[in-house]
Amino acid sequence: MLSREFASGAASPSAFLEQCLARIETLEPEVKAFVVIDKEAARQRAAESSQRWAKGAPLSAVDGMPIGVKDVIETADMPTGMGSPLFEGVRTGKDSASVKALRSAGAIILGKTVTTEFASAVPGPTRNPWDVTRTPGGSSSGSAAGVASGMISAGLGTQVVGSIIRPASFCGSVGFKPSLGAINRGGSHDFMSQSCQGVLAASLADAWCVLSEIAARAGGDPGFAGLQGPSSLPDQRRARAVAVLETAGFARASAGARRAFAEACAAIETSGVEILTRRDSPDLARLEEHIGAAAAQTRKINAWESIWPLNVYRDLDTSKISPSMLAKLEEAEAMSISDYRLALAARDEAREAFEQLRGKVDAFITLSASGAASPGMATGDPAFSVPASYLGAPAASLPVLWDEGLPLGLQLIGFRDEDAAVFGYARALLAEVFQARTFLGLGG
Amino acid sequence: MLSREFASGAASPSAFLEQCLARIETLEPEVKAFVVIDKEAARQRAAESSQRWAKGAPLSAVDGMPIGVKDVIETADMPTGMGSPLFEGVRTGKDSASVKALRSAGAIILGKTVTTEFASAVPGPTRNPWDVTRTPGGSSSGSAAGVASGMISAGLGTQVVGSIIRPASFCGSVGFKPSLGAINRGGSHDFMSQSCQGVLAASLADAWCVLSEIAARAGGDPGFAGLQGPSSLPDQRRARAVAVLETAGFARASAGARRAFAEACAAIETSGVEILTRRDSPDLARLEEHIGAAAAQTRKINAWESIWPLNVYRDLDTSKISPSMLAKLEEAEAMSISDYRLALAARDEAREAFEQLRGKVDAFITLSASGAASPGMATGDPAFSVPASYLGAPAASLPVLWDEGLPLGLQLIGFRDEDAAVFGYARALLAEVFQARTFLGLGG
Repeated sequence: MLSREFASGAASPSAFLEQCLARIETLEPEVKAFVVIDKEAARQRAAESSQRWAKGAPLSAVDGMPIGVKDVIETADMPTGMGSPLFEGVRTGKDSASVKALRSAGAIILGKTVTTEFASAVPGPTRNPWDVTRTPGGSSSGSAAGVASGMISAGLGTQVVGSIIRPASFCGSVGFKPSLGAINRGGSHDFMSQSCQGVLAASLADAWCVLSEIAARAGGDPGFAGLQGPSSLPDQRRARAVAVLETAGFARASAGARRAFAEACAAIETSGVEILTRRDSPDLARLEEHIGAAAAQTRKINAWESIWPLNVYRDLDTSKISPSMLAKLEEAEAMSISDYRLALAARDEAREAFEQLRGKVDAFITLSASGAASPGMATGDPAFSVPASYLGAPAASLPVLWDEGLPLGLQLIGFRDEDAAVFGYARALLAEVFQARTFLGLGG
Repeated sequence: MLSREFASGAASPSAFLEQCLARIETLEPEVKAFVVIDKEAARQRAAESSQRWAKGAPLSAVDGMPIGVKDVIETADMPTGMGSPLFEGVRTGKDSASVKALRSAGAIILGKTVTTEFASAVPGPTRNPWDVTRTPGGSSSGSAAGVASGMISAGLGTQVVGSIIRPASFCGSVGFKPSLGAINRGGSHDFMSQSCQGVLAASLADAWCVLSEIAARAGGDPGFAGLQGPSSLPDQRRARAVAVLETAGFARASAGARRAFAEACAAIETSGVEILTRRDSPDLARLEEHIGAAAAQTRKINAWESIWPLNVYRDLDTSKISPSMLAKLEEAEAMSISDYRLALAARDEAREAFEQLRGKVDAFITLSASGAASPGMATGDPAFSVPASYLGAPAASLPVLWDEGLPLGLQLIGFRDEDAAVFGYARALLAEVFQARTFLGLGG
């Protein structure tokens, strides 16, 4: 957590920014995390922040923190290209609710980070910093890779399927997708009913502070209570019982991922936490059945909900929409509103089945992805990351597992609107089970 | 309903458009319903529609219908000024979900209609066509006045407080605000948690068809089932029992409005419908208490939810934001997220109290406004129109009452997601009680 170092004078925002810029200088030509970087504006903001910290009057815990913004989220001073040739260089002239809040909190918006086309499937140029022949995951590709390479402390991301949890897993950063509606999505191309704005960060404390400072100023989506919890990292909480979610992905997970997960479960159990599986509880077995359908139902829901604005974008210039996106749109246009309503009803049932477990277990654990980042640039299997999106539940990816010598996330899923509890459980896992205190971000 | 005349050959879209353009030629200089009109594009679209009707192959029931679009809703071929000098002439280059759907259904987008500043309080230039010294109501001012003067058959509107029901009342048009989420708001500056996109129309049939053609193509808001019902005007339904909602407005309604409403209630009762008031039912008395707080809670909810993007607009050019809007923003910025959560909780309780009446009454009746449009351009008291917004309930304004020799709406409110039932009850009232068949729009 930078704020401790800034407060103690051990570092200044300006000096820290220069470290980030040096990392960018060295690594960005290969990693390609950014669409645009505004070094001079960042240096100016860092100088102002340094003065505030020197006077002991920072604006917030994220004052002076260098942040990247996924390029589907609007920024007043930089273009918002949405990973699409159609919007390359397009400036909307305004900040999203989250970016405006972060600026008010003193954070430094260093640049826009690469995303896939309209935060969907077609990958951008970003490469995995652990192995540039592999995918960083998507769609929050640049935010994950930028954090993992030390170019930024945090990156804003969005997730409607697996776009935060999956790249966090592949790049070895902390990732957090909040409860449905917990972070205001105003000014982001991120309008689907299960999409959320969230964060990729160097530590749990950074992740929490970024989101909590946004929520304090911009709240959640209209009509939602917004992220709830303390202004600094929630206290450590040891779970009494957690449930394993195998999801549709377990059967096709790599041998290494399965082994890593089994070892993690064993360690968690040894620490005194009860672990339940679908074989221990009919409620959990029922939930797993619903989760088995999550990817298919999510595809239908997202398809219907993207007809607009994709049909308008297609009118603007068909040649600048990818063939796969055009094919998806055509498929969506063949749907009727009744097909959509059926998918919504299935999702509602899944969410009810999920609520049945409240009080019976404290949280859920699973992998964040089916294995290490695969070679090539396809963004990867969403089987492990889609369930939390489908359920509207908060989910954290903790970079504590390994597969093929590359990072793999352990995913912790909580009940809806209990985002702070997920951080509390995650904190306990990092501190007590995985001895990964560096990802806590609490120094020392 | 135009489609009957177009189908029979009694009229053609081109001929009908020329009638509208002639009304515009005569009346628009005084009424000022439009920000922009595109006659040539409209003539082109009307010619194409005329050919489709002549071949017996219309795209939908609204093929060839001239429609105005409230100027907070985006249009690819016209600017979207949002009633603000800051956005005057600004082109976003894309259609809203609703406009795109209407174009696909063959409707003719004739122009953008005047709204207040950001669909809030500061009035635009539109005047009441019944008396140009009086307000047309707001914020869907131009759509209401344009429909009432026969310049368009329907106008899209939005309502977060009273912005459809109130101008419909003052101008004597049919107005309908759907259930929360029933019409896709994508591409409209209309993002608050109780705001809805709806319609002002020359008849009940026009109103229904416009919304139902939008819903069939663009659905409701993401995550909502969307407007449900048949593709043509729902069948007439006679209510068994309706409840009077006095609201906070009854005590300050004009004597003429109260008399008109009492006569309407008597006529409804005579037709065989039981009428209940707060004195007949503790559930209804409780609901009235909640509704008494609707305006105050709505103000808080809207204030918090408008901090963004107003804070971003203020950064762009403070001088182009009205002093009253700036004052509202400052007040909102003094709120905390806890204040907002309390207001949301109060609204949730009101919605629960409303649901308690389901099965006990079929619908609710009240005035649409506290009297005829008042002299001057202030948009008017929202006491009668805010309850349906606050409750997320569908509401129709029927132009069947009079006050000071000017139109006054009778408001019919239904239960959430029972939009079609409201049309059914409204149809029965128009046909059987008020003998106002012309507003049915069924010809004959």
